[in-house]
Amino acid sequence: MPFYDSVVPAYLQMLGTMSAGLKKAEAYAAAKKIEPAVLLGTRLFPDMLPLSRQVQLACDFATKGSARLSASEVPSVPDTETTFDELQARIAKTVDYLKSFKPEQFEGAETRDVTFPTGPGKTTTLTGQQFLTSFSLPSFYFHVVTAHDILRMCGVDVGKRDYLGAN
Amino acid sequence: MPFYDSVVPAYLQMLGTMSAGLKKAEAYAAAKKIEPAVLLGTRLFPDMLPLSRQVQLACDFATKGSARLSASEVPSVPDTETTFDELQARIAKTVDYLKSFKPEQFEGAETRDVTFPTGPGKTTTLTGQQFLTSFSLPSFYFHVVTAHDILRMCGVDVGKRDYLGAN
Repeated sequence: MPFYDSVVPAYLQMLGTMSAGLKKAEAYAAAKKIEPAVLLGTRLFPDMLPLSRQVQLACDFATKGSARLSASEVPSVPDTETTFDELQARIAKTVDYLKSFKPEQFEGAETRDVTFPTGPGKTTTLTGQQFLTSFSLPSFYFHVVTAHDILRMCGVDVGKRDYLGAN
Repeated sequence: MPFYDSVVPAYLQMLGTMSAGLKKAEAYAAAKKIEPAVLLGTRLFPDMLPLSRQVQLACDFATKGSARLSASEVPSVPDTETTFDELQARIAKTVDYLKSFKPEQFEGAETRDVTFPTGPGKTTTLTGQQFLTSFSLPSFYFHVVTAHDILRMCGVDVGKRDYLGAN
């Protein structure tokens, strides 16, 4: 089984989930006359990041995870999105980037060293498999699920089946 | 790289995270004179599951995911826990179960068919890799992150570094 199959499909599935969730959120905000910026600025707790940042960070972990594991140049994407349309475009751009990879680019990545930043002036080196399992996927899901949880807390009608992409 | 490395360490890391988070939550409840049952019954939204169920479900996805991928008998664990101690014991039991597996038991699992229930009277069959990537891990992280988000919403001092097990 190509290592690619552990990486790119995992990111793609949940980016689809986030995009669908944001579409429902946008319709919900319009129906309830909630200012889109208010919904996108909602946090679970005052010192947590708002919905828009959760979406940007999920995109970032998908992009950088795939780049590092395929030994590609790591793209730097500025976090400038402030509207539903802009966040959808960010997700679409991330999906396009992920779809540009070929399975061959991940050949041998599971045993190759990946060095990545883990704090100011600090890096960590792990094998590709460890990087994926212990850092990249948990970080990615953290932001995808927290975005989902913010939508749920706001009353948007998204459920576990939406999250898994089954609806 | 053995397929085991994509499965068991992923579950173990986050079960450790949940256990540590619940320890902080228990101390927090004691300090703030919050009834433990109230904290364990907290939900992000009225129609979501409470903290205790999020913990039980995370344990369940780890247990059943490993069982199905290793073609072992799938254990059925009743959800009876109502206290911090009982939930810690449930997590510890899940950790012991996961640690009982040997890498050989997952050999070839990535291409083997896994049939699992996906609704009343409904099953789905996927390859082991697809089952892990599209269903088991996303479901597991869903409950782990939602448990974390409930703790955060309650003001418990757990952060992203705790979540990744870096603290």
